[in-house]
Amino acid sequence: MSDLEGISPLTLNRLSVYLRCLRHLQVAGVRRVSSQALAERYLLSAHQIRKDLAQFGEFGIRGVGYDVDDLAQHLTTLLGLDRLYRLLIVGMGNLGNALAHYLGFNQGAFRVVAAVDRDPERVGRDMGTFRVYHVDELAAVVRRSGAEIGVLAVPAEAAQENYDALVAAGIRAVLNFAPARVKRTAEVPLKNVDLRINLEEVAFVLRQGELRGEAGGEGEGEG
Amino acid sequence: MSDLEGISPLTLNRLSVYLRCLRHLQVAGVRRVSSQALAERYLLSAHQIRKDLAQFGEFGIRGVGYDVDDLAQHLTTLLGLDRLYRLLIVGMGNLGNALAHYLGFNQGAFRVVAAVDRDPERVGRDMGTFRVYHVDELAAVVRRSGAEIGVLAVPAEAAQENYDALVAAGIRAVLNFAPARVKRTAEVPLKNVDLRINLEEVAFVLRQGELRGEAGGEGEGEG
Repeated sequence: MSDLEGISPLTLNRLSVYLRCLRHLQVAGVRRVSSQALAERYLLSAHQIRKDLAQFGEFGIRGVGYDVDDLAQHLTTLLGLDRLYRLLIVGMGNLGNALAHYLGFNQGAFRVVAAVDRDPERVGRDMGTFRVYHVDELAAVVRRSGAEIGVLAVPAEAAQENYDALVAAGIRAVLNFAPARVKRTAEVPLKNVDLRINLEEVAFVLRQGELRGEAGGEGEGEG
Repeated sequence: MSDLEGISPLTLNRLSVYLRCLRHLQVAGVRRVSSQALAERYLLSAHQIRKDLAQFGEFGIRGVGYDVDDLAQHLTTLLGLDRLYRLLIVGMGNLGNALAHYLGFNQGAFRVVAAVDRDPERVGRDMGTFRVYHVDELAAVVRRSGAEIGVLAVPAEAAQENYDALVAAGIRAVLNFAPARVKRTAEVPLKNVDLRINLEEVAFVLRQGELRGEAGGEGEGEG
């Protein structure tokens, strides 16, 4: 296996997508698939698939394709998804609740083990597979639950202090969904996710269409 | 201004981040900023900033830096954010509610004008600046509200049918947050956003740290 240090986030994301497609094929009972068939079925690029996978070894057999189980297993290991990651959610408003349902849905690699909030209405709530604790107990919750990844789902103005609190509590990595850019203050990996950027990307595509004089004509008016 | 056709999503995302930083500086009353200062303050790369901006013209003055207002205005136009985009949210569960609060928070470029759901408990609800309608009224809601971008926040199994319904209703672009890869069936731009990919990226970084023998040692145990 080659060195993964220099792998770009974009490649990583594509590998994640390939793995999801392969799992879908597994469920459907498909045993072998060519890059061409994979690309057509899931709207991907066959050339890109071959190029991405070639970085990590020889998988496909020319004219035969990839063994679905083998490749899925290999990508799972490559992406570090062959073990369980315990998640702790900070902030159980709408976003935290949505993420709790959303993020765990991942073939067992991720499990929400606890959440914290400061709202007395939410503290103590039993979410089925985990419980909501008071944020003041954060350090104890991280220790007891074995949580490794903290997921920030708090308002923008509370993001930095909660990142700092997670670091102090001994969390090993942080994923920030709050609409604020958090500053990494320690040797704890941090990823800032700004959901609005996706919207700006769509707006950009729409606008480019307008500038080229496409779009319109199908709608019934400007509203 | 150069052609924007070939601009990559990664560059686009960086331009969005720069714009957000510039707006932050505007609020702080800063009038001029060098790529160096911008990079240090917001944990970016000065070289990357100069390279990205150079694609679109001559902005900075050597030794003086960028005019914050000018550059912010330019990026706003470049990204197509100098007009209002009307959003319609499909599915008002936790995710839809979270997105409604989150996506509108964008200096006026995006406004949620309506939502639809099929749950009688949610239909008819007044969300302050918009209302929740029954999904059966989708076409009429799109027409009346002037919604241009549909935001899918429905369960995975309902994603494709709701995309199709949005297209039939005359929406101009779709952003899909449901954890399912939707297939674009018409000339309507579609972006699939999989929030779990961010988690996988963090897990990957953690795992790489482990493989190099970093990490650990700070926590108090394995849980």
